[in-house]
Amino acid sequence: MGDYQRMKIPKPLQNLIDHLESLPGIGPKTAQRLAFNLLFFPEDNIKNFAKALLEIKTKLSLCETCKNITDSSICSICSDESKNHSLIAVVSSPLDVVALQKADFKGVYHVLHGVIDPLNGYGPEDIFIKELIFRIQDSTIDNFEIIMATNTSMEGESTALYIQKELKNISGKNIKVTRIARGLPVGGDIEFADNITLSQALSGRSEI
Amino acid sequence: MGDYQRMKIPKPLQNLIDHLESLPGIGPKTAQRLAFNLLFFPEDNIKNFAKALLEIKTKLSLCETCKNITDSSICSICSDESKNHSLIAVVSSPLDVVALQKADFKGVYHVLHGVIDPLNGYGPEDIFIKELIFRIQDSTIDNFEIIMATNTSMEGESTALYIQKELKNISGKNIKVTRIARGLPVGGDIEFADNITLSQALSGRSEI
Repeated sequence: MGDYQRMKIPKPLQNLIDHLESLPGIGPKTAQRLAFNLLFFPEDNIKNFAKALLEIKTKLSLCETCKNITDSSICSICSDESKNHSLIAVVSSPLDVVALQKADFKGVYHVLHGVIDPLNGYGPEDIFIKELIFRIQDSTIDNFEIIMATNTSMEGESTALYIQKELKNISGKNIKVTRIARGLPVGGDIEFADNITLSQALSGRSEI
Repeated sequence: MGDYQRMKIPKPLQNLIDHLESLPGIGPKTAQRLAFNLLFFPEDNIKNFAKALLEIKTKLSLCETCKNITDSSICSICSDESKNHSLIAVVSSPLDVVALQKADFKGVYHVLHGVIDPLNGYGPEDIFIKELIFRIQDSTIDNFEIIMATNTSMEGESTALYIQKELKNISGKNIKVTRIARGLPVGGDIEFADNITLSQALSGRSEI
């Protein structure tokens, strides 16, 4: 900040630079370049941009069923009858839903909004695990496959393990819990794969 | 856009993604990541961000003297008495002012807001050249050094050349026109320098 002061950037412009810089992955140089560019956008564009920003707070909420981002009480995926509602992918963020939708996943989702991460103060009660349990208990469906699609990081793995145990406690339902496969990414080189990925790719091998 | 539709991103969120994607250097993936992150910003942050966006249109204008971005009629650099007002750096964009201020330039600026670029339909009348001529003619100062600090691209060079000729036509003033040095960047390798830079670095050599 002190550095900018010396450059005498007008206050309203500096304000915008600061807001842009607060975005993840946007550094001071990029924030500055973006702000100077925005200066020369047509006024209508800027007004609509500001409106779009405000509307993500006023028009969006979490789906009552799966906790994904939605502009209605039940999201478009949960209300899609062509989806297999007995197949639920449990993911940690709404961005994971976008990725799995692109991969043409046929089931529905449950968005945890985080992972269990005790070192950073996040316990099981801080993410939507309870809501997943209730959702399954209250469902009219009896046979479920729950795919744990959390990241393959340590926190993702332990979150998957924790939820798997919780799901086992549900009575009156037939629940199969699975984990997305770990292995070499498509197009990946064996030479450059790390030990753990490679050993999991080996143990997860399938007949061809 | 069609791709997003298939992913069923709610309209208000898609709107914000589109606006972010219209920024220079922000691709679809980054825009999506930024928008999803903004969803979880506190409401006050979002409101202030939107306000900051709107204020660059309502609170900022071009300095009457140098055409730099300012929040008053005359910018803070033009009204700074410690600056050498007989030394004017002619630059193509407000970002160049920021760069030269960081390099501790002691003079003042004239911002052209573009370069002469006939291929893209920009002629001398589309940038603030006339205003530079009037500014010098109307000044109480008689001796000027005008540093042409436009980019060293073809358009930057021809803009510098054009303005230099225009400045020669001003009568009653003693005007020295200079061009920023072209040569190797500090820390640059001779091995990797291009021919033109290298030949200009040679012809611009100075005694040590």
